[in-house]
Amino acid sequence: MTQQASGNGGGRKELGVAMVGHAFMGAVHSQAWRSVARFFDVPVTPKMAVLTGRDADRTAQAADRMGWESASTDWRAVIARDDIDLVDICTPGDTHAEIAIAALEAGKHVLCEKPLANTVDEAQRMVEAAERARERGVYSMVAFNYRRVPALAFARKLVAEGRLGELRHVRAVYLQDWLADADSPMTWRLRKEQAGSGALGDIGAHIIDATQFVTGQRISGVSGLTETFVRQRPSGEGTEDVTVDDCAIFTARFDSGAVGSFEATRYALGRKNAMRMEINGSRGSLSFDFESMNELWFHDGDEDPETGGFRRIVVTEPTHPYLGAWWPPGHVLGYEHTFTHELADLLTALAAGTAPEPSFADGLRVQRVLSAVEHSAENGSKYIQV
Amino acid sequence: MTQQASGNGGGRKELGVAMVGHAFMGAVHSQAWRSVARFFDVPVTPKMAVLTGRDADRTAQAADRMGWESASTDWRAVIARDDIDLVDICTPGDTHAEIAIAALEAGKHVLCEKPLANTVDEAQRMVEAAERARERGVYSMVAFNYRRVPALAFARKLVAEGRLGELRHVRAVYLQDWLADADSPMTWRLRKEQAGSGALGDIGAHIIDATQFVTGQRISGVSGLTETFVRQRPSGEGTEDVTVDDCAIFTARFDSGAVGSFEATRYALGRKNAMRMEINGSRGSLSFDFESMNELWFHDGDEDPETGGFRRIVVTEPTHPYLGAWWPPGHVLGYEHTFTHELADLLTALAAGTAPEPSFADGLRVQRVLSAVEHSAENGSKYIQV
Amino acid sequence: MTQQASGNGGGRKELGVAMVGHAFMGAVHSQAWRSVARFFDVPVTPKMAVLTGRDADRTAQAADRMGWESASTDWRAVIARDDIDLVDICTPGDTHAEIAIAALEAGKHVLCEKPLANTVDEAQRMVEAAERARERGVYSMVAFNYRRVPALAFARKLVAEGRLGELRHVRAVYLQDWLADADSPMTWRLRKEQAGSGALGDIGAHIIDATQFVTGQRISGVSGLTETFVRQRPSGEGTEDVTVDDCAIFTARFDSGAVGSFEATRYALGRKNAMRMEINGSRGSLSFDFESMNELWFHDGDEDPETGGFRRIVVTEPTHPYLGAWWPPGHVLGYEHTFTHELADLLTALAAGTAPEPSFADGLRVQRVLSAVEHSAENGSKYIQV
Amino acid sequence: MTQQASGNGGGRKELGVAMVGHAFMGAVHSQAWRSVARFFDVPVTPKMAVLTGRDADRTAQAADRMGWESASTDWRAVIARDDIDLVDICTPGDTHAEIAIAALEAGKHVLCEKPLANTVDEAQRMVEAAERARERGVYSMVAFNYRRVPALAFARKLVAEGRLGELRHVRAVYLQDWLADADSPMTWRLRKEQAGSGALGDIGAHIIDATQFVTGQRISGVSGLTETFVRQRPSGEGTEDVTVDDCAIFTARFDSGAVGSFEATRYALGRKNAMRMEINGSRGSLSFDFESMNELWFHDGDEDPETGGFRRIVVTEPTHPYLGAWWPPGHVLGYEHTFTHELADLLTALAAGTAPEPSFADGLRVQRVLSAVEHSAENGSKYIQV
Repeated sequence: MTQQASGNGGGRKELGVAMVGHAFMGAVHSQAWRSVARFFDVPVTPKMAVLTGRDADRTAQAADRMGWESASTDWRAVIARDDIDLVDICTPGDTHAEIAIAALEAGKHVLCEKPLANTVDEAQRMVEAAERARERGVYSMVAFNYRRVPALAFARKLVAEGRLGELRHVRAVYLQDWLADADSPMTWRLRKEQAGSGALGDIGAHIIDATQFVTGQRISGVSGLTETFVRQRPSGEGTEDVTVDDCAIFTARFDSGAVGSFEATRYALGRKNAMRMEINGSRGSLSFDFESMNELWFHDGDEDPETGGFRRIVVTEPTHPYLGAWWPPGHVLGYEHTFTHELADLLTALAAGTAPEPSFADGLRVQRVLSAVEHSAENGSKYIQV
Repeated sequence: MTQQASGNGGGRKELGVAMVGHAFMGAVHSQAWRSVARFFDVPVTPKMAVLTGRDADRTAQAADRMGWESASTDWRAVIARDDIDLVDICTPGDTHAEIAIAALEAGKHVLCEKPLANTVDEAQRMVEAAERARERGVYSMVAFNYRRVPALAFARKLVAEGRLGELRHVRAVYLQDWLADADSPMTWRLRKEQAGSGALGDIGAHIIDATQFVTGQRISGVSGLTETFVRQRPSGEGTEDVTVDDCAIFTARFDSGAVGSFEATRYALGRKNAMRMEINGSRGSLSFDFESMNELWFHDGDEDPETGGFRRIVVTEPTHPYLGAWWPPGHVLGYEHTFTHELADLLTALAAGTAPEPSFADGLRVQRVLSAVEHSAENGSKYIQV
Repeated sequence: MTQQASGNGGGRKELGVAMVGHAFMGAVHSQAWRSVARFFDVPVTPKMAVLTGRDADRTAQAADRMGWESASTDWRAVIARDDIDLVDICTPGDTHAEIAIAALEAGKHVLCEKPLANTVDEAQRMVEAAERARERGVYSMVAFNYRRVPALAFARKLVAEGRLGELRHVRAVYLQDWLADADSPMTWRLRKEQAGSGALGDIGAHIIDATQFVTGQRISGVSGLTETFVRQRPSGEGTEDVTVDDCAIFTARFDSGAVGSFEATRYALGRKNAMRMEINGSRGSLSFDFESMNELWFHDGDEDPETGGFRRIVVTEPTHPYLGAWWPPGHVLGYEHTFTHELADLLTALAAGTAPEPSFADGLRVQRVLSAVEHSAENGSKYIQV
Repeated sequence: MTQQASGNGGGRKELGVAMVGHAFMGAVHSQAWRSVARFFDVPVTPKMAVLTGRDADRTAQAADRMGWESASTDWRAVIARDDIDLVDICTPGDTHAEIAIAALEAGKHVLCEKPLANTVDEAQRMVEAAERARERGVYSMVAFNYRRVPALAFARKLVAEGRLGELRHVRAVYLQDWLADADSPMTWRLRKEQAGSGALGDIGAHIIDATQFVTGQRISGVSGLTETFVRQRPSGEGTEDVTVDDCAIFTARFDSGAVGSFEATRYALGRKNAMRMEINGSRGSLSFDFESMNELWFHDGDEDPETGGFRRIVVTEPTHPYLGAWWPPGHVLGYEHTFTHELADLLTALAAGTAPEPSFADGLRVQRVLSAVEHSAENGSKYIQV
């Protein structure tokens, strides 16, 4: 009466995965790799083959804890292995180009954390590698996980269906506060050579991608202003100069004619992860705040004004994006589920032989906006075409 | 350079787990069993040994999908196995007593879904079995998962620290709407012989336990009123009588002198899983709604009235209960995490040889309140001591 | 080119008003009397003839400040005056019956603050006087001002139009906190002989009337529980016994088959004037909180679940009740406007020779519910027919 | 026993007031003039002497309805009258300079609606007239009423007391939607020659003044972007060109080092009067939305992060600005009260012989920001010093 379970989803094809990096992003990705085939009918089952890191002991411990079959400190050796089909890059931005290009050239699919790279040049080279690989059936994806927040995926659907009409306003902010204390110590995220930029690339990149995703439009130009509030931070015995922006605010135009307002900061005391978006169109409006990620606010302009108003949609109905795989209505999801959704989409695309989204080209597009904001900020906020 | 990961947390003791039932609760528990040792430093590693169900094929498929090593249709055989240390009961309430008592007598720890049983008598027998087992070092726990919502665990801490002072008011509602449509078909949850009661036992049980947990007080008496709005539902070709309550509302007294107001319904159109609690004390107040489960609202009465007000605490700080194991502030959790927390507490208690909470006696206490509400409702709402 | 304005609305009939009492309610009523004809096209213009009070100096000062033409300490003399057409009673409840009955017998219309009286007997006598007067074209009204909150008047309209379908749940609370401090001194509101009851009559009366108004249904029975948290309060040199309830909670049935849950307290620390109401029907739901009085939350059950949700209606559209008289959308109203609306309705009814609402009979109905709650609370919460 | 009330506050000095204009602003100002001495202990009592307008009949009717003693169509004659002490200008912006300068030269105090003028030049001339008048004890004030929202006045106090520490972020939007329908007809507000600008001057002026007021800082430079979404509107038989901006968004720097983000639009479908402000400092943060004008959200960064969070302060305590004059806590105020507060401050300043605020110079400062935004928008968003 007892049957041995197959462990791989009943004969589905396996996909050998190697992950590079095991900090915050590595932990989230691991939970997603462990969970995706448990909830989604993905056509391939991921096999968590190997985790790579810089320190042998810590990587081995992380692999054990996170559920990877083995650990390695040599990512080059790993991407050469025949049993590896996909490389998941969870390291800081200054390493993305080298690893991703090598993996693609080795014929491995690549999932790369955002921002795609620290510079437009690097991102451009990655896109070229991705396009070459694609011709050989090797695919790549950049991990803008906020696209997989069900509320935002549903927002995109509403926009695409014309429920908002012609778009006029986009306002997006990404507010955190973990740098608000001027005495908190220096970190690599405040060094330009490692992080590329400050709040702009770290969290501003998310709202640039997410607004383009939801609206289905591209940002065509920007005018930026950046500021560094705390110019030196404690480091070891002394202090070290902060070489990135502490915040970036910019106005923008979308190619549809909508105008936008953006702000990214890690100094908004009391806001923990307030990735917010509001869109106003000629027929409807939307509002979202990641701190309440299971809610989407929708105003339907076709309603009688007497009964019209912003509706709080609890985005947990079975017909909402990704929700059919989870719990009954009102049994809310969390941050980590966005990564599980991302992998479900990735595995589905790979199995179908289609290019997953967002592509490296999408990542490059974000990079160009980031670069334009910086360039504008350095040039008296003048408007720069993207 | 490549090391083989041990897969069991580096030599930690393993705990063989058998789960009975693989519907909604089975799926949530499975995700928790898979995840708990990945995030919490639990002293024992669960081994997901066997899943049992009624239908061989469906159980085997579920086991495969949910990550159980094997499947079985004979729970009696399973609880006799030496490699099974714990039985996790996820079946409907009318089966709890039989399975739990058998498992305890077989020397297995038991985790049992709520409500503990369908009657006070059954619950009483389960408590007796649990107490006998406990003398032999065999433990039991009832799965009131809302105790492990971080916001509610933190609420309990605030109350225990005296931040609310003397408690005066408790008001709790659990509002769902999946029965609001009078034409939706009959289900086992509307049959008294299977479900025990309607909204009262299904979701009312949660707010009874949760308010007693947060306040640290017991409900000492109740006055109830129940109603069945839709008395017949479509079933097969004809209709079938609904034999349980559609909603239950009751007033209550707590042994501390506080008064309470409770309501459970599945007819609150537009409310998906609104498990809400408000507490007012002489020094402070709290407010919570599960639909926004990462938020706790706290009013500190010691504040200057000029700057006083309910604070929206985003319960994602590393010092909040359970949060140290997860993501940075503002990267919110979901429904399923409450079960992972439950298992972390269970495994920690088992390894320490202490009784996990809530115990079967806690479950019986809830059962007695449910019974008193029913009894009062049948007797002109007269006040019944619990 | 300069014309002298007529000061009375261009020949409209004047209505001579006498007001009794000049404390909180007197101040609010005065602002409403001063404002009503400025904003509403009322067919009669109120003439604020005389203010009566107990102390000559304080009454004269109040009359001056509040805009009354004269002051008096003899209400019996005032109601005998030919130039007085209406008496507005703003004194505590223990004086209502005497003044109202005398005024009605003297042929004056009466507007009386709530609760109508301190006992059912008094209220009954007032209703009889009102009915006798009505035969002579003399009208009366009880001042349940919350009926004139635009959001609640609009809520009633939605219910009456069937937008909520068959009503199932009503839950209403009125939460204040001005007694939460156990050391705050004794007041007349805590003496049964003056106040009649505590939170129950003071604020519970409002939610009883308001729910009956919005639903268009009557409460047919109740089961109550009351508590006095602080049994003695500082008074002069010593202490004095509190002889009324500090809070009242009760369950109820409406004659339509809906069930209700009610709570009135002045111990809900942090809640200032949270008069809240939620209604769930088979087609829709409503939610309201007076602390955000310009908002009504409406869930339309006919919506596609995918885009359904509670809508925050900002009740400031010109088509909303009373709003056509005020400002553009979003330019919100306050507490005092409910009294201006009350007078607009009163003056319109009087000019038309129709009975204004709520009538004294409506006030008596509320009194009977209050009495039933008290009786139930004194008798083990047993269910009492109203 | 009956005393004749004096009608002027017991011998207080009277102030003869003339108002110019009787549309929306005239109606609100009138209610404030009627109410101010009823609630505030102002040292002078306003006498509503004369209302002036263009059409004799309509002005007479308005005077009658709004409570003015007489009506006139000749504002020049009115400002020459000896019994007029103050002129209240409620006409469109293109008339402000002429009337205000004439009134000041005639020795009358002036209260002038915002924006102060349609151009910087006009505003400059008004400031010069105001300064000359001031030497003769004749004062002027510009009516930025949002300064008198109690929540914003209290916000200013918190900032001034250092509760927010060093300010870093200011984000302010003013969102309305009454132009969202592209088919709604042309109005004077869309003609540059009458309105000066579109959303920028109409509502953007409010957030410029309000943020400078609350922060106590000045905007030192801006980078702007404006857009006209609907370039032609129905007018009579045909269409007419819209010659103003439909929205304006701009980034800014404050002289304290804070950075700002601003947006004004009348196309934010579903937002009725959402004048919102958020401020983040090194010690605390604030958030406000006029649609919920009685609430101020305050985050105190000195709190333990475990219990920290944005507090919803219901700004109705007797110690809050202006609230002592009104109702008990939780009995909320509305839009019109901001004007009553404005007059209370004006009358108090006049009686004390001190200059009321905001002055014409404050109005000019706002005008210069508006002008800089326009100039920047016309020049590729380049940053312009104010």
